[in-house]
Amino acid sequence: MQTSIIPLQLNERNYFFLPILYIVWSDTLLGDRERKIFHQFVDRISWLDDADKENLLERIASNNPPQRDEIEQWHQIIHATASDIKEPERLSVLGITLAKDQTGLNISAEEKDQIQKDLEVLEQDLGIIGKSAIYLFKKVHPTITTTHQTAVDFDIQELTAYLDGNQAATIKKVKDLLQRPEFDYVDPGNLKNYRNQVLAWCQLIADAGFGSIAYPEENGGKGDMEAYFTVMETLSYHDLSMVIKFGVQFGLWGMSILSLGTGSHHAKYLPKIGTLELPGCFAMTETNHGSNVKGIETMASYQAVDKTFIIHTPHSLARKEYIGNAAMHGKMATVFAKLVLNDKDYGVCAFVVPLRDDEGNTLPGITITDCGRKMGLNGVDNGLIAFDHVVIPKENMLNRFSDVTEEGKFETPIASDNKRFFTMLGTLVGGRIGIPRSALSACKSGLTIAIRYGDTRRQFGPEGGEEVPILNYRMHQRRLMPLLAKTYAGHFAMQYMTNRFMNRKEEEMQEIEALAAGLKATLTWHTTASLQECREACGGKGYLSENRIDALKNDTDVYTTFEGDNTVLMQLVAKTRLGAYRAQFENMNLVTIFNYVASRTKTSITEKNPLIVRNVDEGHLLDSSFHLSALEYREKDLVDSAAKRIKRLIDEGMDPFDAFNVCQHHLVSVGKAYIDRIMLEQFVFAVQASEGKSFSKVLKKLCDLYALSNIEENKGWYLEQGYLEGVKTKGIRKMVNQLCWEIRKDAVPLVSAFDIPDSCLSAPIAFT
Amino acid sequence: MQTSIIPLQLNERNYFFLPILYIVWSDTLLGDRERKIFHQFVDRISWLDDADKENLLERIASNNPPQRDEIEQWHQIIHATASDIKEPERLSVLGITLAKDQTGLNISAEEKDQIQKDLEVLEQDLGIIGKSAIYLFKKVHPTITTTHQTAVDFDIQELTAYLDGNQAATIKKVKDLLQRPEFDYVDPGNLKNYRNQVLAWCQLIADAGFGSIAYPEENGGKGDMEAYFTVMETLSYHDLSMVIKFGVQFGLWGMSILSLGTGSHHAKYLPKIGTLELPGCFAMTETNHGSNVKGIETMASYQAVDKTFIIHTPHSLARKEYIGNAAMHGKMATVFAKLVLNDKDYGVCAFVVPLRDDEGNTLPGITITDCGRKMGLNGVDNGLIAFDHVVIPKENMLNRFSDVTEEGKFETPIASDNKRFFTMLGTLVGGRIGIPRSALSACKSGLTIAIRYGDTRRQFGPEGGEEVPILNYRMHQRRLMPLLAKTYAGHFAMQYMTNRFMNRKEEEMQEIEALAAGLKATLTWHTTASLQECREACGGKGYLSENRIDALKNDTDVYTTFEGDNTVLMQLVAKTRLGAYRAQFENMNLVTIFNYVASRTKTSITEKNPLIVRNVDEGHLLDSSFHLSALEYREKDLVDSAAKRIKRLIDEGMDPFDAFNVCQHHLVSVGKAYIDRIMLEQFVFAVQASEGKSFSKVLKKLCDLYALSNIEENKGWYLEQGYLEGVKTKGIRKMVNQLCWEIRKDAVPLVSAFDIPDSCLSAPIAFT
Repeated sequence: MQTSIIPLQLNERNYFFLPILYIVWSDTLLGDRERKIFHQFVDRISWLDDADKENLLERIASNNPPQRDEIEQWHQIIHATASDIKEPERLSVLGITLAKDQTGLNISAEEKDQIQKDLEVLEQDLGIIGKSAIYLFKKVHPTITTTHQTAVDFDIQELTAYLDGNQAATIKKVKDLLQRPEFDYVDPGNLKNYRNQVLAWCQLIADAGFGSIAYPEENGGKGDMEAYFTVMETLSYHDLSMVIKFGVQFGLWGMSILSLGTGSHHAKYLPKIGTLELPGCFAMTETNHGSNVKGIETMASYQAVDKTFIIHTPHSLARKEYIGNAAMHGKMATVFAKLVLNDKDYGVCAFVVPLRDDEGNTLPGITITDCGRKMGLNGVDNGLIAFDHVVIPKENMLNRFSDVTEEGKFETPIASDNKRFFTMLGTLVGGRIGIPRSALSACKSGLTIAIRYGDTRRQFGPEGGEEVPILNYRMHQRRLMPLLAKTYAGHFAMQYMTNRFMNRKEEEMQEIEALAAGLKATLTWHTTASLQECREACGGKGYLSENRIDALKNDTDVYTTFEGDNTVLMQLVAKTRLGAYRAQFENMNLVTIFNYVASRTKTSITEKNPLIVRNVDEGHLLDSSFHLSALEYREKDLVDSAAKRIKRLIDEGMDPFDAFNVCQHHLVSVGKAYIDRIMLEQFVFAVQASEGKSFSKVLKKLCDLYALSNIEENKGWYLEQGYLEGVKTKGIRKMVNQLCWEIRKDAVPLVSAFDIPDSCLSAPIAFT
Repeated sequence: MQTSIIPLQLNERNYFFLPILYIVWSDTLLGDRERKIFHQFVDRISWLDDADKENLLERIASNNPPQRDEIEQWHQIIHATASDIKEPERLSVLGITLAKDQTGLNISAEEKDQIQKDLEVLEQDLGIIGKSAIYLFKKVHPTITTTHQTAVDFDIQELTAYLDGNQAATIKKVKDLLQRPEFDYVDPGNLKNYRNQVLAWCQLIADAGFGSIAYPEENGGKGDMEAYFTVMETLSYHDLSMVIKFGVQFGLWGMSILSLGTGSHHAKYLPKIGTLELPGCFAMTETNHGSNVKGIETMASYQAVDKTFIIHTPHSLARKEYIGNAAMHGKMATVFAKLVLNDKDYGVCAFVVPLRDDEGNTLPGITITDCGRKMGLNGVDNGLIAFDHVVIPKENMLNRFSDVTEEGKFETPIASDNKRFFTMLGTLVGGRIGIPRSALSACKSGLTIAIRYGDTRRQFGPEGGEEVPILNYRMHQRRLMPLLAKTYAGHFAMQYMTNRFMNRKEEEMQEIEALAAGLKATLTWHTTASLQECREACGGKGYLSENRIDALKNDTDVYTTFEGDNTVLMQLVAKTRLGAYRAQFENMNLVTIFNYVASRTKTSITEKNPLIVRNVDEGHLLDSSFHLSALEYREKDLVDSAAKRIKRLIDEGMDPFDAFNVCQHHLVSVGKAYIDRIMLEQFVFAVQASEGKSFSKVLKKLCDLYALSNIEENKGWYLEQGYLEGVKTKGIRKMVNQLCWEIRKDAVPLVSAFDIPDSCLSAPIAFT
């Protein structure tokens, strides 16, 4: 095909060079170095005569550049020939074929070989990869990257049912409620309107009977704590201010009455709390004391003369702070204060203190300050509360664990102050289960939005071809697939956690508290990290509030802080793992009891052999027993070494407080390793239990990805220990890449299985 | 001292056990296992008679627990004796001393030894660390953790002057402006008010002459681009919506006229842009095309008949999106569109298009939609713009790189379409320098707030002692100190970057573009991560908007996306590192030219010897040449292996687009390693140049921390390569801990040296 319009100014044999000329001129690569290469080339070869050589050198001269139209025409000529070549060939072959097509030039097979060989040297000298460059001229063709796409290889509803388990009916009821038009989202800009909207939503939830669901039947509830967690989790597909307001009212406020009060308190308050007739607060944290609850300074002094307590805030930094429901709606509060009898401090107790009258006016002695705008959760009216000698009747003391006789004598069923304090805190562990379940829902929403968007958003593509869904890019998969896997792991772990909590026995309480604290920390951190990744993965669209990642991220950001600061929690978890099992959880200063006996692990003999530390067989890398062994080994070794290290430091004469501080970083690792192992175990169980289901294979793959990403994340540690060698960590990296690539196909169905109502998801980019 | 009130019910010799009894009862550790240990113990020893034994076993019986008052009294008795013991002793010694004090009991030295030995076995069996438990009874005493505190060991103003360098005068002027009362922060809740306030602030900035500072003197400016960056950086201590609005108006809008237009455009527009008389937009990004600018679909068709262009949006997904200044204030825009001449596409060109009349009404054919609320930067009025056959005169084409004759013929000084396109984009590189400098300011603000708060906020402490500043906790140091070090590294790197840009030569442009892209990505990611850590490190206080981490984090969150998505940028950086140095930056599809020649590094011979890979001498670990070698090695090896891998895949017949996708994760690592090395080099230079200054030693320590944290972060990779062995990575971890501990003392002065005005910082927690 002859398409020339502008004369090519090329001798017959110089058509061989046309593809190379096109590349060096169109990418403007020609410089002194390249011209020198051409000159040397011309000097070397024998298959061009002097006229040809002169002509070729003219066409690369700096004073004779081709014009735009000319370059374009070259491309057309080359393209015409290249399209006919089936296999990706070298540029050299293309040049020779083209010369024949365009000029009818005939050369011998022998000469052709020589020319081809020489041209390839020229390409290489110029830094052109011939096999790559050929794609510039080929017809558009499918690439592996282009053709990869979403496939639905399993029954999504079956997976949803598996995830929901025995809670399916409750989940459905809550979703039905959330899809009513009253639950349309509102703009969070105006604090007052937003907070009132959130209160109205909570009223609708209470009206549907979900507020009191955990309370005893005799107090207007259904006695179903498991359903309470499910409600909170499902509500968390919607506005999270609403969820936290719900949690403050029905969880913190109501459950403090239930857990710390006795029969008369239950009868008096719970029915009204469950219907939201009596909005209230949980006033524990003070400005100066958050994590260190023992240090709170609010005082409750008993006056035997009129059988009252005086609740008092000694100074402004002892005010209750961040108290939900305080700034606008709360009428009462459970206030934690130091009990003072005859000027003697009996430690932290809880009291019911009225805050506002029925018209919403603050009562005498109560000063409430609005916390103002926050990073998120602006639909919750957090406030500061100060008490100026507020008098409450004796019966307002929540007296399950501590009581005062009319004469002012202290009474308690638990003699040890330590044990009493931590038992009291322990009854509030439910909050630590609700929070990570709520966080996971937000995380699921974020991943659903980001993964669906990644599946439809196209950007860049092969030369001349159509653009590619960004989820087909390996880096994008690397960003999102491991997070999806960990979210599934978290889901099963929280089902296990809830189950353990529902069937708890007294002697398991410390383990359960450690589990709850560790999972709360791990999964809220996971949620923060995931939503950050989702925001960035959605680019500019992720920054627009309409796409909801803004609210999801900012509302859950404080989850890593409230209900126990994550870093503090992880240290507590570690301390229980160090063997202080029988002491009370939450006791940060517990350094006296330390009965962990470091043992030689079996691993050093059976697993650390050269065959295993270097094993990169696919069968081995995808074997759950390898994954479990690796996570168990890390957990065990970290506990062992932390125990030895702390003991050594103390034995050497270091103050235990200092010794624990020196090892703080190590301790947090202990807590993480413990939870990582628990999560993997539960994921593996869930996969095993799904045998025969349509999604079983996909779930196994996801579980493998969770396990291998976790090992990869900690590969520095494993290599340090000699548990893995470099060849194996490289094999694991490759396998993680491969699993990400494969799971990308299932990613959309996997998020669809979360079955988040469209009206809750709401983000336009999730529906394109 | 006899303090008994309640009879102790203990035989004389059983006073030996009082400390142990106190511990097991107060921590409620007594269970079946422990009682069995006591029974076995009693059977074993000979220094108690039967009556004593019976009495002891009675006191641990489950049916005879001590009452609260009794336990408290035990503590008083033990404490009275313990306070007199100077050195931390074993519990056993305490018990023996106490028995003597309380009962006058006298025993022989020999028997004392035996009793002490037996008691220690009992402690151990019960899991009590005697040396640790003793602290329960000691007087309050200083611990290492308690006494560590801020010290000012250098001249802070001298360091500030060093950081400001030759820009000190400009910085001072901007800070003076920002401290005027008109710059008080406003609530971001009401979008309209907030945006108008931001416009008003920009007007004040323009009035002070900062808007036009980069423009040529003949166009009303000062021709000082370096000062422009300094202004943007310093403004970034204040509201970041204001900074981005400033950047859109004077940077993007103004600089597009300057860089893409010619003399008449400069004369006509720049004077009015610099004074903010003419607010405008930079309309490049479209809904469907962000990173892939080449794919934009807005059209500019030339009509020779009346010498006009018709600007048109072919469909709604081709609307310009996220355009700053569009929703409310912009009167004109630089619009990027495909030039169409006689139905032929000539690629992306830029045009000045009027949007609104003087009254602010949208002009015919223009439809602007508000982007609405965003995660942050709500003071910037981002909008979508659609053009419906909008007619503009021919002279509105910004014709520096592409032009059209009156007859409609295309003219250009750059024949290659590729080169022209990327040269045009290259002129906009300045934005990529302003953004990371702005990000670093936000990062400095966040760190100043979090570090100052950590220095004053106290929580927990040794048993009975006062609470400790949270910055004394190792974990807290681990969270913040490496971020502070990297922020300093970023500061010096951006000074280097700016300097390279100011003195750029044509042949350095690709390196400079790669540097700018890589530093933009690295430092905006660093800022996002740092502010997240600051938020969490400040706990609940960090969540309150008044403490500003909310705004700092949310406003800068999109920095990782705009001016080039970080992940895309890092791939471009990597491609230039792979040796396509002479091609155009930003060319994502550039796969043809690939002249990187993998070379054997010297390292394998000289550095990977057993002595070095295991060397943990302090002198070596703190040697900058070790740090530099390590970072250079990582960079070089990653480039080498990426080049070989991609070449192998293509040689094996893989489509280059697929090959680059397979290696995407690898490529991002290449980009990161390159920037890490550059940042360390510049930090080391800055330390060297500070010799003799009061802060030189502290700066060296900070530089060491930056280097070692970076190596630690990548230790998995180093171990995989055999460049480091486990013993050395453990040594590095220990050294990082040590440096964090030491720098904690200097942390407050180090953030004070940023010299951020109090009124900008504003966070109450930074001033307690």
